Amino acid sequence: MSILVLGTVALDTVKTPSGIREKMLGGSAVHFSMSSRLFTEVNLVAVVGSDFPLTYMRFLKRKGIVVTSLIREEGLTFKWEGEYRGDLNAALTLNTELGVLATFKPCISEGQKKIKNIFLANVDPDIQLYFLGQACPGAFVGLDSMNFWIKNKRTSLLKVLKKADIFVANDQEARDLSEEANLLKAAKKLYSLGPRMVLIKKGEHGLFFYSKDFVFALPAYPMEKVTDPTGAGDTFAGGFMGYLAQARKINTTYLKKALIYGTVAASFNVEDFGVERTSGVNLRQLNQRVKDFTKIISI
Amino acid sequence: MSILVLGTVALDTVKTPSGIREKMLGGSAVHFSMSSRLFTEVNLVAVVGSDFPLTYMRFLKRKGIVVTSLIREEGLTFKWEGEYRGDLNAALTLNTELGVLATFKPCISEGQKKIKNIFLANVDPDIQLYFLGQACPGAFVGLDSMNFWIKNKRTSLLKVLKKADIFVANDQEARDLSEEANLLKAAKKLYSLGPRMVLIKKGEHGLFFYSKDFVFALPAYPMEKVTDPTGAGDTFAGGFMGYLAQARKINTTYLKKALIYGTVAASFNVEDFGVERTSGVNLRQLNQRVKDFTKIISI
Repeated sequence: MSILVLGTVALDTVKTPSGIREKMLGGSAVHFSMSSRLFTEVNLVAVVGSDFPLTYMRFLKRKGIVVTSLIREEGLTFKWEGEYRGDLNAALTLNTELGVLATFKPCISEGQKKIKNIFLANVDPDIQLYFLGQACPGAFVGLDSMNFWIKNKRTSLLKVLKKADIFVANDQEARDLSEEANLLKAAKKLYSLGPRMVLIKKGEHGLFFYSKDFVFALPAYPMEKVTDPTGAGDTFAGGFMGYLAQARKINTTYLKKALIYGTVAASFNVEDFGVERTSGVNLRQLNQRVKDFTKIISI
Repeated sequence: MSILVLGTVALDTVKTPSGIREKMLGGSAVHFSMSSRLFTEVNLVAVVGSDFPLTYMRFLKRKGIVVTSLIREEGLTFKWEGEYRGDLNAALTLNTELGVLATFKPCISEGQKKIKNIFLANVDPDIQLYFLGQACPGAFVGLDSMNFWIKNKRTSLLKVLKKADIFVANDQEARDLSEEANLLKAAKKLYSLGPRMVLIKKGEHGLFFYSKDFVFALPAYPMEKVTDPTGAGDTFAGGFMGYLAQARKINTTYLKKALIYGTVAASFNVEDFGVERTSGVNLRQLNQRVKDFTKIISI
């Protein structure tokens, strides 16, 4: 089954202890697509400006990503500039230029309106709501957000949350939105706000999943070297949603498997800048690392 | 098979957001014993001063702990005073009084010299070495330490490390002793220093185990409320060593099971001050929570 992802396509300038990249291809929808493409057809819904390099557009197509709803508008592409220091756990945002993202109105084709797997990557929750209004009713909806929207568009975000099947958040976002410092309490609180499942990503410390049917904790894949964590959460979500879309069934076993695939997809992402590593990964490599990881976590 | 534990018996004054306790029974050997006693006979080797309450001594005996090598000397019992704020992840040490611990020379009986499971809980590594000189050669040796010794008695600690089968450290201790910020690299480096196994405890983030035969990552037991984390690491070690001693065999399956038992034992410890919770726990309750935890981590 295909996936429809709404999010950002960005030009990222990232500095880490390993080096620097300027205006490289990034954004939540791009990172999501790079892992989900390994499982199924991915339809990317986003906007770029007139400065967006055609080489990047061709690159996305070459990776099999459907870009018919990736709109190019007059103006500048969304740009993010950030730096990671020390233990690479948190990015320091140096600059954000919204550009054409500021007035973005997503628009999808009739075919895309039938897609039953939707991921709302991190964009303005009002855009997420507008988008959901066009999308397939009854689709399986994954939702991501960020602290900026939690703080500035809480009401809209709570509305999207009610429509989501699974809410994915990092630990800080989960704490901020739930107003609970303890992660188990945070997960329960978020669950009470509407979604059927809550997934809290703890970066190098793994994840915690909460639903009515089961709770699940998973460590991260142990890494010796992290080059650039930008997009790890979106790559995780792509692996998770991709696996589920391909499984065509949602139950405890498949959900746990999907969480493992997401974790492993994210481990590839952090090995190099942007999508430099994930864009070259194939399903065989992903499966092999899932096998290695399964050994590490099997009791 | 019995266990011999060398460590401290202390009078702890602890303040957490949940309240305060003054001069309660604590210390590394006490916390270790409270969980290991559920599996086997535990012989505690430590020193207390003349101010050590007889009620505490009777309490230890009542819990089945063999205290024949718990020496009472003229002087004051080791005292630790600490506070936890906010997320309870790190203790702020307010005061430490070594008392009789400063001149402690452990001395064990002929029977105890035959015990084949030894845990060197956190004390001066020179005391640990002196103790090992008396203990059963070829015994299975677990080793714990702390930042103070890593900084001030590195050479002695490295000597004990060479004699240990398993070294247990929290993440910060592992980083400090190995001089590697990355935990996987730290585990490998510590492994190269002598022990057959390295176990890095990450508190609420679980643990990472490294050996030649296998690596293993385990999340922590999800807790809604943490009252007092003091002694969680020692309680973990007690559950781990206790399970192994009772299993009478060390292989991948038993080691993983032992790590799970240690994790669950620690989860009881943090639910109340000192040993207030663990001293009341029985094996049935421990097994039940192991069952619950196994569900949460099974893939």
